[in-house]
Amino acid sequence: MDILHRVGIEAPVSKVYAALSTIEGIAGWWTKQTTGVSGPGGIVEVHFVSPSGERIGGMSMKVMALVRDSAVHWHVESGPEEWIGTDVMFELSEDGDYTIVRFAHKHWREAVEFFAHCSMKWATFMLSLKDFVETGRGKPSPADVKIDNWN
Amino acid sequence: MDILHRVGIEAPVSKVYAALSTIEGIAGWWTKQTTGVSGPGGIVEVHFVSPSGERIGGMSMKVMALVRDSAVHWHVESGPEEWIGTDVMFELSEDGDYTIVRFAHKHWREAVEFFAHCSMKWATFMLSLKDFVETGRGKPSPADVKIDNWN
Repeated sequence: MDILHRVGIEAPVSKVYAALSTIEGIAGWWTKQTTGVSGPGGIVEVHFVSPSGERIGGMSMKVMALVRDSAVHWHVESGPEEWIGTDVMFELSEDGDYTIVRFAHKHWREAVEFFAHCSMKWATFMLSLKDFVETGRGKPSPADVKIDNWN
Repeated sequence: MDILHRVGIEAPVSKVYAALSTIEGIAGWWTKQTTGVSGPGGIVEVHFVSPSGERIGGMSMKVMALVRDSAVHWHVESGPEEWIGTDVMFELSEDGDYTIVRFAHKHWREAVEFFAHCSMKWATFMLSLKDFVETGRGKPSPADVKIDNWN
């Protein structure tokens, strides 16, 4: 089971790639609490805190591939049980005034309810990525869009 | 291949069910141009127009099941080639102050790029449904959130 989303961003591919391939970029749309090293073989760590500052979760992802202006691939090493061993991938291409992002979160073992929750959350983060690149203002956690009672 | 989303709406299940099971409800979050009969065996038709009023697409769906405060199931009879024969389902349950909507668009034949586009669009319409039920103001087409160069 894979989560697949497509989003189009009105910006040069190099700006979108920077938002996906650097710690500062990821912090602009996914979670402000992003640390680690975004280089081949490096580990990117994302942390999520509640509005009151309490830690509510996080993931560590190994950087499997960084292809300039084309692709980013992470392999999830730790985090929620359902995420471990899954792969998060972004493929970029240009189409007129748009950079097209083909997002995939692959290799889920089961289509559990948490899969459906994460599918919605990834969609909101893809809109956050679009806003961040187009306007400089994303909605990274803890300012992320809340979609249900799991957050 | 299935699109699966989970959203939590802070409202009684009966209000969410009404938004999914009546023509007026569907027009409040998906597309203002919704017609047909939302009853068992009826046909619900959704139409999409550009801001200038030009028709850009639509689907006809047979109502397969309406289970009060619990489930809505449509079978797509006409529309985009990739949608024909697929099933759109909403399952509702209550969890504390929330009504949980488990959305599924099932039985896609292939994970084509249009699948990924529709996954994102459905996510924005689930947020529109949430806003419509919670606040009375959704973002149905043609005021829907634009996500890429396909719309």
